[in-house]
Amino acid sequence: MSTIVVLSGSPSAVSRTAALCAHVSDRLRRAGHEVAALRARDLPARALLAADTGHPRIAEAVRLVEEADGVVVASPVYKAAYSGLLKALLDLLPQFAFAGKVVLPLVTGGSPAHVLAIDYALRPVLTSLGADHVVPGWFVLDRHITIDGGEVALDPEHAAPLHRVVDAFASAVDARRPLLAAS
Amino acid sequence: MSTIVVLSGSPSAVSRTAALCAHVSDRLRRAGHEVAALRARDLPARALLAADTGHPRIAEAVRLVEEADGVVVASPVYKAAYSGLLKALLDLLPQFAFAGKVVLPLVTGGSPAHVLAIDYALRPVLTSLGADHVVPGWFVLDRHITIDGGEVALDPEHAAPLHRVVDAFASAVDARRPLLAAS
Amino acid sequence: MSTIVVLSGSPSAVSRTAALCAHVSDRLRRAGHEVAALRARDLPARALLAADTGHPRIAEAVRLVEEADGVVVASPVYKAAYSGLLKALLDLLPQFAFAGKVVLPLVTGGSPAHVLAIDYALRPVLTSLGADHVVPGWFVLDRHITIDGGEVALDPEHAAPLHRVVDAFASAVDARRPLLAAS
Amino acid sequence: MSTIVVLSGSPSAVSRTAALCAHVSDRLRRAGHEVAALRARDLPARALLAADTGHPRIAEAVRLVEEADGVVVASPVYKAAYSGLLKALLDLLPQFAFAGKVVLPLVTGGSPAHVLAIDYALRPVLTSLGADHVVPGWFVLDRHITIDGGEVALDPEHAAPLHRVVDAFASAVDARRPLLAAS
Repeated sequence: MSTIVVLSGSPSAVSRTAALCAHVSDRLRRAGHEVAALRARDLPARALLAADTGHPRIAEAVRLVEEADGVVVASPVYKAAYSGLLKALLDLLPQFAFAGKVVLPLVTGGSPAHVLAIDYALRPVLTSLGADHVVPGWFVLDRHITIDGGEVALDPEHAAPLHRVVDAFASAVDARRPLLAAS
Repeated sequence: MSTIVVLSGSPSAVSRTAALCAHVSDRLRRAGHEVAALRARDLPARALLAADTGHPRIAEAVRLVEEADGVVVASPVYKAAYSGLLKALLDLLPQFAFAGKVVLPLVTGGSPAHVLAIDYALRPVLTSLGADHVVPGWFVLDRHITIDGGEVALDPEHAAPLHRVVDAFASAVDARRPLLAAS
Repeated sequence: MSTIVVLSGSPSAVSRTAALCAHVSDRLRRAGHEVAALRARDLPARALLAADTGHPRIAEAVRLVEEADGVVVASPVYKAAYSGLLKALLDLLPQFAFAGKVVLPLVTGGSPAHVLAIDYALRPVLTSLGADHVVPGWFVLDRHITIDGGEVALDPEHAAPLHRVVDAFASAVDARRPLLAAS
Repeated sequence: MSTIVVLSGSPSAVSRTAALCAHVSDRLRRAGHEVAALRARDLPARALLAADTGHPRIAEAVRLVEEADGVVVASPVYKAAYSGLLKALLDLLPQFAFAGKVVLPLVTGGSPAHVLAIDYALRPVLTSLGADHVVPGWFVLDRHITIDGGEVALDPEHAAPLHRVVDAFASAVDARRPLLAAS
């Protein structure tokens, strides 16, 4: 069993990104992983933007990342890249906060025209945080995510490839654990 | 005379980015332009992160950009890209907020290894905002900026190429005005 | 009247990229511009890859770019970026070959998922060549280009925005000429 | 023991990139790996640019990549990105040629200002080729590589971090083998 933190960078209370994170967390939990949610929008805004790591809520967020074996980083596409809210959270992490960790980038957007934001915008940032392994990510179109009350549903045809990506991420996290234990 | 807004994305009160913005604003003013400063860190944090364009301070920021002929966008390099604070401000602007405008990207950083963040990270975002013309940008090493009391000094050897970039930007802003008037 | 070179980076004899270039060249010619075609695939392969600028055909290509006021750079998307063939041609140009020029990036591809290759992959390269102004580019889906004998047709609904981009490029080229003459 | 192919994208006969590849290949061989060199400049230019996979030399190159467990992809920086020669070779590989493989990106350049070309230009292309794991890459300054006759020397201070990157790559290649065997 690995510990995974799911970091969501959507500023909206009811968002496709948050719904996607809930869906992915659920799948990871059912596979036996311990999953913690870290929603950037729930952090105190002023402390977040000022990178105030002395603030207890910010300190706890940093610790959650530090203790995780794997990190899911999810963002909506805004202006052809990740959200500023997500980046503000990444900015206050230590320079090599993702060292020794496996990272899964997930992006949601209204148009397939933004798919490459994962690999050209988000991935270089995740790599700069020292991630050992940023696995192949996935882009989910907003219209393939349905939110009905508290229930999140993914268009089944499009859920299958997402699940393969999530499962490959979970395998990569698990595969690293003996390596880390031995090192 | 053109109207230029200088948008700064550093979260620090005393920052190299802010000092660079002051230096550039001064040069633009002395050349006869009307210059307004827009510091993301001075905006109310919660309203900024929530993209609350109903908040009067946020609405005023949006209006400043809307009324400008030219926009200077300055950021420190964090995690191989622009700051989350800057991006949060860009995120709440209308999708084509830079249409009809000339934009100058400026980035400060501690290492020349981050120079390409201007063209690979920041420029695509500025382009996605509909900018007609994102002129060649400039990267200033932190150690070439001295802040002594309220006085900002740039290493003279490195100030000259920056000034050429700023003057080329100002010329491009001025050159667009008759085009806009005629259209 | 300005001189424009249209640089095509498709390796195929009958390609959507080449068809798009023909269509764009035609529009520019009818607007009174002098247009020259530079197809990377027509250059001698060995000299191109060896950056042999002493080869007369390569030297002529370099000269065509040098003498142009504007450059259209067109490529198919391969592996989430421009073609290697196009890049091989750009590689042998002088470091600031695009200084003082206006550049229009055009990309063709089979899926809208590759739209951002224009701004994240191609634009930074064009900027590094010293272009004063890389105007907003355009992505054309393969299926919107029909080649029937020698006749190229663009889906009319999708031709209109392309034409606006091409006309804005032509205006920017023309607008630079008095600036250059005065400098 | 794993099979590793070292793909070099420098057009020069005596190049820093080729020297770096020789150095890295030597280290991998001494660690017990089987290493094959694939120099894009040695391939027939016309067949390479035409993506003629029917040509026996091109077919052999494709097969070398197909059979490898790990791929080192090395390029000089030209115009803020990888070389066109390298990209021409990557272009003719099958769309998911790197599926199931571990990939190490290496870049050489004259200035540290180009370091981010690894993560913003090369890495997205390697990811698009379906690589399971693109490990952290490395940038080597030209002046840290000495070529004396056939002997390649790396500045010792700068060799150590390169060796750590190469060894981490080799470990990742080895770690994947049992996973693949089991799947």
